[in-house]
Amino acid sequence: MLLQMLRLISVTLNKTEDKTVAELITSKSNDKIKAAAALVSSAKSRRQTGEFIIEGLRLCIDAARTGIEIRRLFYTRDAYERCAGIEELAGYAAEVYEISTQAAEKLADTQNSQGVFCVCAIPDNTLEVSTVVSGGRYIALENLQNPSNLGAVCRTAEALGINGAILSGCCDAFSPKVQRSAMGSLFRLPMLVTDNLPELLSTLKDSGVKVFATTPDSKAADITTVDFGNSAVSVIGNEANGVTDEIFEICEALTVPMKGRAESLNASMAAALVMWEMLRG
Amino acid sequence: MLLQMLRLISVTLNKTEDKTVAELITSKSNDKIKAAAALVSSAKSRRQTGEFIIEGLRLCIDAARTGIEIRRLFYTRDAYERCAGIEELAGYAAEVYEISTQAAEKLADTQNSQGVFCVCAIPDNTLEVSTVVSGGRYIALENLQNPSNLGAVCRTAEALGINGAILSGCCDAFSPKVQRSAMGSLFRLPMLVTDNLPELLSTLKDSGVKVFATTPDSKAADITTVDFGNSAVSVIGNEANGVTDEIFEICEALTVPMKGRAESLNASMAAALVMWEMLRG
Repeated sequence: MLLQMLRLISVTLNKTEDKTVAELITSKSNDKIKAAAALVSSAKSRRQTGEFIIEGLRLCIDAARTGIEIRRLFYTRDAYERCAGIEELAGYAAEVYEISTQAAEKLADTQNSQGVFCVCAIPDNTLEVSTVVSGGRYIALENLQNPSNLGAVCRTAEALGINGAILSGCCDAFSPKVQRSAMGSLFRLPMLVTDNLPELLSTLKDSGVKVFATTPDSKAADITTVDFGNSAVSVIGNEANGVTDEIFEICEALTVPMKGRAESLNASMAAALVMWEMLRG
Repeated sequence: MLLQMLRLISVTLNKTEDKTVAELITSKSNDKIKAAAALVSSAKSRRQTGEFIIEGLRLCIDAARTGIEIRRLFYTRDAYERCAGIEELAGYAAEVYEISTQAAEKLADTQNSQGVFCVCAIPDNTLEVSTVVSGGRYIALENLQNPSNLGAVCRTAEALGINGAILSGCCDAFSPKVQRSAMGSLFRLPMLVTDNLPELLSTLKDSGVKVFATTPDSKAADITTVDFGNSAVSVIGNEANGVTDEIFEICEALTVPMKGRAESLNASMAAALVMWEMLRG
C-alpha cells in the first residue's frame, strides 16, 4: 500500500515536471493489461483488434520513428528509471501507463523483460500485386513455421533491399517472437499475406513475373546463372518439407549449388543466399 | 517390477534373435547414465573425457556412418520399437544399453526426445595451420555465443564447401545444442579451436593467407569485389558486439553491402553470405 502511494506520488511528480503523464496500473487483471496480454499469445486477438504488441525500448522506438501508430505504451517504474528513451516514446503514444512488475509479467514474452511494451496498430504496408508486376525482387515464404526463421528472413530481406515479402501459411508475422527476430524490418517491408499462393503465383506469372521455387535438388537451375528478369519472386518452403508440389508445378526450380555432405541449407540460410543472388548485379 | 521383468525378457529375446545385445539400465542414478548426463550439460566433462553425446536417430546414424567412434548407445524400449535404424546403430556401438524412460529423461536435451543417444569420441578432425596456408577458404568465428548460430554457420559452411572453421571464444562446439543445429556437419568440417586468435591470424597473414574481418561498416571492402587470393580466412564476430578491435588491427575490413534500414544482418546470415562470396567463382 505504501509502495503504491509512493508510486502515485512519483507519477504525479512526473506529471508536474511535465515528463510523462502516465496512468498507474497495478493489477494484472486490469482490462487494458488483459487485452494487451491477449495480443502476446493470440493471433486471433491480433486479427480482431488490428493491433500487435512489441517489447523492449529499442524495438518500440524503431516502430515509433518508422511511423507505426503507438496506441498504448506500458512501462514499469524500474524501466522508466533505467531507460532514458521512454520519454521520447511517450511522446508518440496515444495512451501511457505505468504498470506494476506483476502486470508487466503478464505482457512479457522474454525471460529478462525490460518492462517496456507498446500496443501498435498493424501497419498498412500491404504489397500490391500491381507493384510486383511492375518490377523488383520479391521473396515468398510458404508454410514457414519457426517464428525466429520468419523474423530472420524478413530482417535479411530488408537489409539486402528486397522489395517485398509474400507470406502463405506461415506463422503470424505480428507475434512478439517474429517481431523480435525481425528487428523492426516488418514495420517497413511491404508484405502480402495470401491463403492461395498457387493462384497468386499463376496470376503473377501470367503478368510476366518470373516465379521460382527453391529446392536442394542439384538438377534445378543454379541461382548464380539464372536470369531473374525485370520482376522475380522466389519461393522458400517449410523448414522440414520444402516447397509444396503444387508450387513446383507453377514455378521454375532453383537451387543453391552445394559441395558438402550436409543434406541441405536450413530455410533461412537458403533464403538469404537466394535473395542475395536475386539482387546481385 | 513386472514391467522390469518383461523388459528383461524382451532384451533376452532380442539377444536370442541376434538383433541387439543390450544391457538394461533402469535407474537414472546408474553410473553410466550419470556420466552421459554430465556430457549433456558440462563442457568440462566433455573436455576431460574426450567424449560428447548426441541425441536422435538421424544424427547418431550420421555420426556412425561418418566414422565417428560410438562408444555407448542408449535407447528406450519405445524408441527401439519405433525406430528401425537402432539395429544398424547398435552394430557401430562398442556398448549398447536399453534404458528406462526415467534414465532417458536425464540424457534428453530436447522436449520431445526420441529416446536415442550416443556417447561418441570427439573426432580428431583438427584443421592444421599448414593446411590453411596451403590454400582454401576458411571461416573464423570470434566469440559466437549462441549455440544455434554456431551450429547453423557450421552446417552452412560444410554445405557450401568451406575448407574449415577456426573457433575462438565460442560456445562449446560439442554441446548437444550446437550439434543438433549443425546437423552432422561438425563430424566432418575440419576445425581449429584457438585461445589466441590475433596471434593465429598474424601467423597466417605472415604466411601469405589473406585475413578479413566482417563489419556492417559500409566503408569496408565490398565482399563482391574483394580478391580472396589462394587462401583466405574471414572472421565473423559476436552476435551483439561484432569482431573485436584487436582483430580489425590485423585484418582487412570486409562488408556485405546493404540497402535497407535494418541495422545489420545477424551473425549467421552475414556468415552465410561471406562464405558464399568467398567460394563464388
